[in-house]
Amino acid sequence: MIRFAVVGTNWISHAFCEAAQESGRLELVAVYSRTLETAQTFADEYGVSRVYDDLDEIAGQPDIDAVYIASPNSLHAPQASLFIRQGKHVIVEKPMASNLAETEALIALAKEHGVVLLEAMKSRYTPNLVRAKEVLATLGPLHRASLSYCQYSSRYQRYLDGKNPNTFNPEFSNGSLMDIGVYPLSAALELFGIPKSFTASGQLLDSGVDAHGSLTLKYDTFEVLLSHSKVSDSYLPSEIQCENGSLMIESISRFKQLTVHERGLPERNVSLHQSDNEMVYEAHHFADLIEQGNYDHEGLEKTREVSRILTEARAQLGITYPADAL
Amino acid sequence: MIRFAVVGTNWISHAFCEAAQESGRLELVAVYSRTLETAQTFADEYGVSRVYDDLDEIAGQPDIDAVYIASPNSLHAPQASLFIRQGKHVIVEKPMASNLAETEALIALAKEHGVVLLEAMKSRYTPNLVRAKEVLATLGPLHRASLSYCQYSSRYQRYLDGKNPNTFNPEFSNGSLMDIGVYPLSAALELFGIPKSFTASGQLLDSGVDAHGSLTLKYDTFEVLLSHSKVSDSYLPSEIQCENGSLMIESISRFKQLTVHERGLPERNVSLHQSDNEMVYEAHHFADLIEQGNYDHEGLEKTREVSRILTEARAQLGITYPADAL
Repeated sequence: MIRFAVVGTNWISHAFCEAAQESGRLELVAVYSRTLETAQTFADEYGVSRVYDDLDEIAGQPDIDAVYIASPNSLHAPQASLFIRQGKHVIVEKPMASNLAETEALIALAKEHGVVLLEAMKSRYTPNLVRAKEVLATLGPLHRASLSYCQYSSRYQRYLDGKNPNTFNPEFSNGSLMDIGVYPLSAALELFGIPKSFTASGQLLDSGVDAHGSLTLKYDTFEVLLSHSKVSDSYLPSEIQCENGSLMIESISRFKQLTVHERGLPERNVSLHQSDNEMVYEAHHFADLIEQGNYDHEGLEKTREVSRILTEARAQLGITYPADAL
Repeated sequence: MIRFAVVGTNWISHAFCEAAQESGRLELVAVYSRTLETAQTFADEYGVSRVYDDLDEIAGQPDIDAVYIASPNSLHAPQASLFIRQGKHVIVEKPMASNLAETEALIALAKEHGVVLLEAMKSRYTPNLVRAKEVLATLGPLHRASLSYCQYSSRYQRYLDGKNPNTFNPEFSNGSLMDIGVYPLSAALELFGIPKSFTASGQLLDSGVDAHGSLTLKYDTFEVLLSHSKVSDSYLPSEIQCENGSLMIESISRFKQLTVHERGLPERNVSLHQSDNEMVYEAHHFADLIEQGNYDHEGLEKTREVSRILTEARAQLGITYPADAL
């Protein structure tokens, strides 16, 4: 059993801890939060007694093997770095870091210290991602795809009310592209590989982060449009158009359901069964990598490419974070 | 009753002639085709006896008031010009002409000769277009829209087989942007006005025309993505995302059905009743303009803007037509 700690006590940390339990391979043993009280409330739900409000202290515990980090984006790199230096395996929420330089430094550091570093991009390890690739190979030449994640943030009203929530604050390396756009971008790289070139567009808020936007990814013989928004909702699935039919993906962050429309035929559900908590697949993958001692796994290069495109797209849009100046 | 002739005997001409009948204001009196036999077969369906294979001859008939032109794109301008010079009112299929220069010349010529010139952009005159604008005004700030018309052309296989069909031949000013992309583009200009700027991308065939592509239209506070394809199908409606809800449009060329999703509420069908043949609305509009003697109507400026964007988009993509050199 891999003994892990959690950093951050948001809903996503709960989802990961439940996935870890479901995997049967990762045991939560300690919780960090900025206050002991918050850490304790979280820990109590899992019958865990050890709580910390000091990062150095939790990172130094010899009986902790690994850590799951779900703090604000800007803290991913410094916190992951701290745990890696203490020889801990690290799974860190997407996006791995604020920019490409941080991502590359983390990857190098993990290899140097012989620990697993993994970006918690949950869609990347789902059965339906594999299934989607399989189905696409049967539909003829790929021509167009439109992958979308547009979800109104309940905190947008707080932003409009001048309350400066983290999620629209450049101090935390946030915004639509980083928080939401990373899902269709990662899915595109999984499904179609690395684009030849791309252009980004987006709408910036006065705070300096983007509220919504798009990326047009250009490949040799096809084109992929990515849409993301934190200020409006989409009710449509993502769609990949091949010459003989189209594949619909319900929820690009979860690959929840796959539907195929072949021209002239009725639509078919081609999904595989998936756990309702897709994080169980990344939890298993993390455990696999640790058990195999695989510190140079292929997920790192994918994370690096995603980070490169996010960083270049922000440059195109004029979005800068304090973390970029470090 | 306005007495009109038809140029071109494709399915779209049948749809217009049926719409003209349904309007009760336009009477088909003559048919032109390159062969008299084809013209006669078409004319027989409407109990019409006068058929022509000579354009000058049909354009010179004094008892013909108007003409509907549905020839290949490259012939729109020379044919429309011929009829305008003979004092005929002209309704011409979309896109009005091969490029902006031709479009502007036609508009000037129609004003000079005091005749109605109208682009047969059927969506522009539907009740549901008006309804869509009304509904959008209730959904809060507009953020993103994705308008799409992707429909596999049955002639693509003929193209792949080397048979050089008109629809993929630059000689006829064809291709995905011109034939299909013009629908979401026109709808965008109707719904959102003229964009501040735009970028085009697309995939070119060896013949020199585009097989599919996209336009990103930039407005001050929102962004509109247009997708079009003649080599793949989309099964999704167009979607307009506002802050409090989204509007779905089934068939962007027809505005067939409107559905609203307001956040937290069940979806609602907000469509108005429309004729199954939406061309009846443009037929009525054409008749209105003729009866009013309105030769400088607002549709002309919309057509001009669409033509400008199509022409500039082709320049971005490197798509040129023989007609551009005239």
